[in-house]
Amino acid sequence: MNDNQISNPLLITSVQNPKIKQLLELQQKSSARRQSGLFVVEGQREVQRCVNAGYELDTVFICPEYCKKSFAAPHAFAVSPYVYEKIAYRGTTEGVVATVVAKPYSLADLRLPENALIVVLERVEKPGNLGAILRSADAAAADAVIVCDPLTDLYNPNLIRASVGAFFSVPTVACTSEECIAFLQEHSFRILTAQLQDSRLYYDTDMRGATALVFGTESTGLTPQWREAADAHVRIPMLGVVDSLNVSVSVAILLFEAVRQRQAIQG
Amino acid sequence: MNDNQISNPLLITSVQNPKIKQLLELQQKSSARRQSGLFVVEGQREVQRCVNAGYELDTVFICPEYCKKSFAAPHAFAVSPYVYEKIAYRGTTEGVVATVVAKPYSLADLRLPENALIVVLERVEKPGNLGAILRSADAAAADAVIVCDPLTDLYNPNLIRASVGAFFSVPTVACTSEECIAFLQEHSFRILTAQLQDSRLYYDTDMRGATALVFGTESTGLTPQWREAADAHVRIPMLGVVDSLNVSVSVAILLFEAVRQRQAIQG
Repeated sequence: MNDNQISNPLLITSVQNPKIKQLLELQQKSSARRQSGLFVVEGQREVQRCVNAGYELDTVFICPEYCKKSFAAPHAFAVSPYVYEKIAYRGTTEGVVATVVAKPYSLADLRLPENALIVVLERVEKPGNLGAILRSADAAAADAVIVCDPLTDLYNPNLIRASVGAFFSVPTVACTSEECIAFLQEHSFRILTAQLQDSRLYYDTDMRGATALVFGTESTGLTPQWREAADAHVRIPMLGVVDSLNVSVSVAILLFEAVRQRQAIQG
Repeated sequence: MNDNQISNPLLITSVQNPKIKQLLELQQKSSARRQSGLFVVEGQREVQRCVNAGYELDTVFICPEYCKKSFAAPHAFAVSPYVYEKIAYRGTTEGVVATVVAKPYSLADLRLPENALIVVLERVEKPGNLGAILRSADAAAADAVIVCDPLTDLYNPNLIRASVGAFFSVPTVACTSEECIAFLQEHSFRILTAQLQDSRLYYDTDMRGATALVFGTESTGLTPQWREAADAHVRIPMLGVVDSLNVSVSVAILLFEAVRQRQAIQG
């Protein structure tokens, strides 16, 4: 199988086709993603951003009724509208689903500028939250997102989807908290942990130098090792009856405060 | 039917029970909510916040296996675990679902302090986004959220759920854009529209006086009538490859910039 011609690809009309079964497995099972080293991207803009970022497509599934674009890939199939509806999460508006070769980053791969801005998430649970955080991290030009002791794999389709392509532009590393703390200390990052107790207001905290913004889960917060590693504890004031914000909202508020402080220097 | 005693309520074991059918209708159909004037709240903390905010419960459904608390209501039923799983969205962790008497706010009902802070959303589509916005609005002590020309009713269960109870603490009004603009101008609000084109950076914009922060949909943005009614257009800088943020994230960033500016005066 080596069909480079999306203009005349094989047409798949059954969800029993082995290629479709393999695709569904990649969507549903992190074990299948781990074993194959592949993950799934849906949507014309997302696949394009993925290619632009230097990721290698493995197989492209296009429904010609819904997608007029073509994408170069070693393997390409046309699928019927019926099959497309079974493999797509977002309805039929996009018309393209691709499998992509994973490109895992490690801490050692990170190339960080001076005064880098990093988001650290300890044990984030929901892939959709992590995707939303990547979207904000991209918008705020954060230099990396580090996920410590993750409970989800970084190639979960909900994560990729919620990031609207930012997954491909923001280096994302999974590691242990110990490794992350050692890395940040070695590179002289200021570690700011988001927590209510024993904290100062985030906007009274200097974020202009090399800064790591660290967040725990919404339910249990950060573990003691992070609280102890912190150079400062920061909080977003909670002025109403709810006692917390969604973690992706908290991350965005702190990231854009860093943007504000950093642009204020230049201005 | 007038059973005030949650300690010995009637036990419902079938989803064919008319009370359960009515509840499911209220969850699923905005027309049922509109006709009955009732909406649905799930969760112990949420029902408690609803009561604390002065809302009137109509009927409480409690699964004694999962919920040991009681809530006073004109009608109360115990439900079996089987039935509870059919009526609950959030699994069995909470054990309580209630129907509540709607209390619609109009613009004329709003009692606003000096230098009020208001969020205006034009045609917000997703109930979950609106709920998340209410959660942030509560945390930032916003005085009201006004939804113009809404595409969803304000009592959608996804909205209530995503607000984690903030729906009950933040006055939320639905009206037309014309009515809202007239109201804001009459009360001398500074109207700041979030838009990329022809705009200044949000953190270079004064939000200390009476301020309305206005947001359109993620796909189409604001309509011309809002752009024209604006005292200033403001933008969040987009420094990466994605061209927009989730609307609930954008709202939170601007709200907390207003908090920062306002607390900086006091400090």
